[in-house]
Amino acid sequence: MAPKALDYESLNENVKKVQYAVRGELYLRASELQKEGKKIIFTNVGNPHALGQKPLTFPRQVVALCQAPFLLDDPNVGLFFPADAIARAKHYLSMTSGGLGAYSGARGIPGIRKEVADFIRRRDGYPSDSELIFLTDGASKGVMQILNTIIRGEGDGILVPVPQYPLYSATISLFGGSLVPYYLEETANWSLDVNDLRHSVFQARSRGLTVRAMVIINPGNPTGQCLSEANLREILHFCYQENLVLLGDEVYQQNIYQDERPFISARKVLMDMGPPISKEIQLVSFHTVSKGYWGECGQRGGYFEMTNIPPQTVDEIYKVASISLSPVPAQIFMGLMVNPPKPGDISYEHYIRESKGILESLRRRARIMTDGFNSCRIVVCNFTEGAMYSFPQIRLPPKAIDSSKKAGKVPDVFYCLKLLEATGISTVPGSGFGQKEGVFHLRTTILPAEEDMPVIMASFKKFNDEFMEEYDEHRGYSRI
Amino acid sequence: MAPKALDYESLNENVKKVQYAVRGELYLRASELQKEGKKIIFTNVGNPHALGQKPLTFPRQVVALCQAPFLLDDPNVGLFFPADAIARAKHYLSMTSGGLGAYSGARGIPGIRKEVADFIRRRDGYPSDSELIFLTDGASKGVMQILNTIIRGEGDGILVPVPQYPLYSATISLFGGSLVPYYLEETANWSLDVNDLRHSVFQARSRGLTVRAMVIINPGNPTGQCLSEANLREILHFCYQENLVLLGDEVYQQNIYQDERPFISARKVLMDMGPPISKEIQLVSFHTVSKGYWGECGQRGGYFEMTNIPPQTVDEIYKVASISLSPVPAQIFMGLMVNPPKPGDISYEHYIRESKGILESLRRRARIMTDGFNSCRIVVCNFTEGAMYSFPQIRLPPKAIDSSKKAGKVPDVFYCLKLLEATGISTVPGSGFGQKEGVFHLRTTILPAEEDMPVIMASFKKFNDEFMEEYDEHRGYSRI
Repeated sequence: MAPKALDYESLNENVKKVQYAVRGELYLRASELQKEGKKIIFTNVGNPHALGQKPLTFPRQVVALCQAPFLLDDPNVGLFFPADAIARAKHYLSMTSGGLGAYSGARGIPGIRKEVADFIRRRDGYPSDSELIFLTDGASKGVMQILNTIIRGEGDGILVPVPQYPLYSATISLFGGSLVPYYLEETANWSLDVNDLRHSVFQARSRGLTVRAMVIINPGNPTGQCLSEANLREILHFCYQENLVLLGDEVYQQNIYQDERPFISARKVLMDMGPPISKEIQLVSFHTVSKGYWGECGQRGGYFEMTNIPPQTVDEIYKVASISLSPVPAQIFMGLMVNPPKPGDISYEHYIRESKGILESLRRRARIMTDGFNSCRIVVCNFTEGAMYSFPQIRLPPKAIDSSKKAGKVPDVFYCLKLLEATGISTVPGSGFGQKEGVFHLRTTILPAEEDMPVIMASFKKFNDEFMEEYDEHRGYSRI
Repeated sequence: MAPKALDYESLNENVKKVQYAVRGELYLRASELQKEGKKIIFTNVGNPHALGQKPLTFPRQVVALCQAPFLLDDPNVGLFFPADAIARAKHYLSMTSGGLGAYSGARGIPGIRKEVADFIRRRDGYPSDSELIFLTDGASKGVMQILNTIIRGEGDGILVPVPQYPLYSATISLFGGSLVPYYLEETANWSLDVNDLRHSVFQARSRGLTVRAMVIINPGNPTGQCLSEANLREILHFCYQENLVLLGDEVYQQNIYQDERPFISARKVLMDMGPPISKEIQLVSFHTVSKGYWGECGQRGGYFEMTNIPPQTVDEIYKVASISLSPVPAQIFMGLMVNPPKPGDISYEHYIRESKGILESLRRRARIMTDGFNSCRIVVCNFTEGAMYSFPQIRLPPKAIDSSKKAGKVPDVFYCLKLLEATGISTVPGSGFGQKEGVFHLRTTILPAEEDMPVIMASFKKFNDEFMEEYDEHRGYSRI
């Protein structure tokens, strides 16, 4: 009988090409080991609550009240919920046409989009139009929609940093486009050199590609660097010269662990540059409730904001957004994130205490982790300036590379699997993000509880140093 | 300067081809009129809570507690929440790895998938494997993922009923496939004739298409018919003969308004047929929390279940699902829907009272609406056996068709716009769903509050009969 449409051999080839290492081989093996009773430390995904981070209280109070609006009619509701949470729940419910169970419009709830626009205005000093903001299921959904709008076929290239977050490579494969890599420079703290960009575009064009857009991830994932204003300016100039749409993945904008380079949005730098550039470059910026000190990954809230996108294109994006609407509770989380309690509000002090506590601990954990990796044999690691990851380079000895080949594994996968089996630490091999030929990394999150960090890093160091001992060239030879 | 990647002229053509009438021209005009202060009755989307349907209490209590788990530690929680809701919230929280803020696995929470599998087993009398169930953002997301997996290019055809829910036409356009229509027979209560199916496939093949899959919507949207067991058996035989994947959109399975043809799932009929067919046909079935007596559209919960799909394909579907995970609160709604309070539970009586109340009222409304349409001049309407819609045929007189052409509108759009302006009733023209050449319909939901129904139908009748009077051929001529 002929193959059926859902037999492997006859599937859409673009689906088969998708790779998504964050939940790939290592993760599956970790899940198996967990089922067998092994204690696993899941540092493969930026999933803070799974590692014990408590949700912020105020937003949860508000969303719980919105889910159970009958509580608002109870005269004793004030015993359980502070007055500002009650007021805020009423505020959001009044914006819906039937509470959390009713579909919102395709862009998301208008009042919440206005709160997002206000947030952007306060952050950047330039007004933002709420009609050009779409609320999405996390940032990923927005990235996927915009890439789907841009990519016409394999002749279309998208510039993506390498190492990169595999959402980009996966989505470009899924929609049948071509990824055009530009390399971040590890020895210069993962900085972006515009000459390399130019080189990447030149190479892509000589392959016959039309380079249509450029992705930046700021702060970087998995690399953790924060882009400077000067660097952003260069990038924008480059996009202007090369006629590229800029996609600004800024989901880690709250996660900054140093003071030298605070977060600055691509949109602010663009507006600062003034006309003609500020009126010409097509920019889409992405944000989420999954990261920051919120970490509400499971709720699936996010937005994208469009700058200099023609109205006819916005109509097309609207049309496709209307096929799959975003969850209303997640939209409310987004509203709460951009419009948190203010000084004088009943919940303000508590909110600040919780959020500062998380952020300061993340800053300390970033330091502990970087220092821990750098104390290991043949491991070097840049400091995590922002985001949620550490991305150490593991200089695998030739003997380890040989052994991994014999085992039929990519060398960094081989290393990470051994690490997992020995310690329960579930990481993602650098090959899942892209890296230069012959250079190996792994990615961990900095999210394990602060009190567990010393033990985790000691366990890593013990494994690594024994691994290096075992596969050390010199020691190997001296045994013979 | 060359066009930019997000200029309209250079967008992905498949995006431009997408049409989605449910939130199209009529809806946009209705939204404008609403802003201008006109009272609009939104019957364009199956969005029950927006028309005043109250959410079921028990699931909202459970999800509110899951959002605010600190309430569970409060000794007074029992004053606000019944003990079974508290127990159920603890049950679901224990299934997560960090509450509602943590990502679930790519398939969704295992314990909830088990509840879905149990529900399917109880419903159909055959076991279901929870590893072959994926929790999704509403049913739409699942439909989109499966179609993306099947469609390789414009040579791939998907059989879709006409009239159809435009999710299918839109998604097939977006992924660059070809829609192969099969017509439902209005004069035989929208039944499906397998000879017509055969004819559609034959025609598609002579156009050079590879027909890969067939969609059924049961109960029908927008047409409201329920498929009989005999008809489902014929369809399955046909899929077997023609080597087609069957996609069973069964989101309205709880919405049945007659007793002659209860809902029967495609999967049950397939299993009843026994080998070889029961082991051969690749079937994907879809369900949601948005419909039924739940109507929790805004939460975005759903699932798909796969039958006879090879493991390697399941792995591919898993991989793509892992790029965009579904909201955890919505997964809990799905768990609650398939595993509601049981006899003896504290909340059982109340739950039954609420759900029966909604369902019985929907049944009465289906009848009021059908009768109302059939009392109108030159309008005929099949009874809504199931789902949430009424789909009357409007026999537009030639003069009305001429006038609509002069106005640059499709005739049914012309009629629906006039209806909207005159009465505030926001419907969707039949052309958005597909209809035979020269035949015109509109779709309304049966969701307006029961007490408002007589006024709405009277207002419709007044408009329609005046419209028909105005455009009546005879009367028109007699005026000259």
